[in-house]
Amino acid sequence: MFDQQKHVFNLWATEDQTPNMRLSLQATQTLHTEQTPYQHLAIVDTLPFGRVLFLDGIIQTTTKDEFVYHEMITHPALNTHGSPKRALVIGGGDGGTIRELIKYPTIEKVTLVEIDARVVENAKEYLPEISCELDNPKVEVRYEDGVKHVQEHKNTYDIICVDSPDPIGPAEGLFAKEFYQNLYEALTEDGIFVAQTESPWFTESLIRRVHKDISSIFPITKVMLAFIPSYPGGMWTFTMGSKKHNPLEVAADKFPGYKTRYYTPEVHKAAFQLPPFVQEMLK
Amino acid sequence: MFDQQKHVFNLWATEDQTPNMRLSLQATQTLHTEQTPYQHLAIVDTLPFGRVLFLDGIIQTTTKDEFVYHEMITHPALNTHGSPKRALVIGGGDGGTIRELIKYPTIEKVTLVEIDARVVENAKEYLPEISCELDNPKVEVRYEDGVKHVQEHKNTYDIICVDSPDPIGPAEGLFAKEFYQNLYEALTEDGIFVAQTESPWFTESLIRRVHKDISSIFPITKVMLAFIPSYPGGMWTFTMGSKKHNPLEVAADKFPGYKTRYYTPEVHKAAFQLPPFVQEMLK
Repeated sequence: MFDQQKHVFNLWATEDQTPNMRLSLQATQTLHTEQTPYQHLAIVDTLPFGRVLFLDGIIQTTTKDEFVYHEMITHPALNTHGSPKRALVIGGGDGGTIRELIKYPTIEKVTLVEIDARVVENAKEYLPEISCELDNPKVEVRYEDGVKHVQEHKNTYDIICVDSPDPIGPAEGLFAKEFYQNLYEALTEDGIFVAQTESPWFTESLIRRVHKDISSIFPITKVMLAFIPSYPGGMWTFTMGSKKHNPLEVAADKFPGYKTRYYTPEVHKAAFQLPPFVQEMLK
Repeated sequence: MFDQQKHVFNLWATEDQTPNMRLSLQATQTLHTEQTPYQHLAIVDTLPFGRVLFLDGIIQTTTKDEFVYHEMITHPALNTHGSPKRALVIGGGDGGTIRELIKYPTIEKVTLVEIDARVVENAKEYLPEISCELDNPKVEVRYEDGVKHVQEHKNTYDIICVDSPDPIGPAEGLFAKEFYQNLYEALTEDGIFVAQTESPWFTESLIRRVHKDISSIFPITKVMLAFIPSYPGGMWTFTMGSKKHNPLEVAADKFPGYKTRYYTPEVHKAAFQLPPFVQEMLK
């Protein structure tokens, strides 16, 4: 079916991954586009990555590889903590991070703070495999500014996942040092946060600065790597700030058994083994 | 300087990474193009990846990320063996694999079997950081067919690196079961070979078949992963066939100290920890 369409309709969705690198995906149809109050949103069916959510022209998530991002922004932190009850997701309106947090047996309540309600509404309509737990009774969805939310909630969350777009536009404040200080204060005494922190190949200075800022606030700061093929270069970093628990000291028998496609106790350990060229960025 | 050029000359080098995915790199100049007896060859200076070697329009190596590929196709096998003396590289005319093999203290002789002399000659002219050890007295360069070479050399090599392009055109025979059987016979009694075996995201059936074929010949067959941003999806597999030594059982103190930018003893172990979606391909 796709092959036929390929011959009759030569449609390509192109992302400017950097100012001098472009990724083009052959598409079969655009399901929806709109200008929300915050950004341009598009949902496109593509041949290489399945259904894709674009925000301001940048790929946010795809049905082919979303499991990597969503498992890695949640399970390493959850398992490092061991018994988290309350979790906060900032951004992440597609719901994939929520879906993974809900799998963890001790989680009682998850709050999603997304500034743009249209992301959530479109995810529910077009990305059901990703948004499927947004109506779970353990989940509270709030349409508000994540920066403000953490300022107003002290000592509240065991886990915070900063599931943001790139540090331009509405997400800029989610990469600021003041924000990390507020995260520290919003976390409980043994709380952990994890943020997506871009590419070692193309945003080295951001990784360097973010790591420096987080290290100056959290006693334990660790960077991990994951393979995300729809992101520039396919190599992505997540940075974890932890008040007490060390992600490199999680006992293997502490991992609860739930189904994952990327994350395992072995992948947990492997993700923190940084090649020297990445270690250099963190000095 | 690049920025100025960017405004006056909007040149893009585009690779069809799959039939429905394209990567475009902004380029500053094409240094050289030619049709060799075997393939089309181009050397292009790009902004995102530095200098790039294309063969038949496919990125083979770039000065930005070549260290990952060349370290991972050599050091895991070298360290798994522990005392290799003779090594063979099939393909790899750019010389990067040779450069890494030469670092290993016990290596006495390395044979490069490249079918296309023009790859070697252009690498020497345009990619000096990669080709720098091709004139090392330990290195013998032969312009011949790799398939035939291994047929004619039994019980000769401790390490064989199959540093081939994609399994189309001149390299097709380097992914055949008969070839893996000939590799087995060309290896010494505790020999190891490693081959680049493409992407888990876009060539699943190839990885599956190659793993099955190698497993049917070698007692120890292992797949490892590496981040290579200039290759489709940025996640690449290497498959190792070993007669005796297990790459997961290398003592940490056995790793010789030489300078690398990607590979370390910890990265060695981490590279073999496969996410479940990759494990599934190998069943």
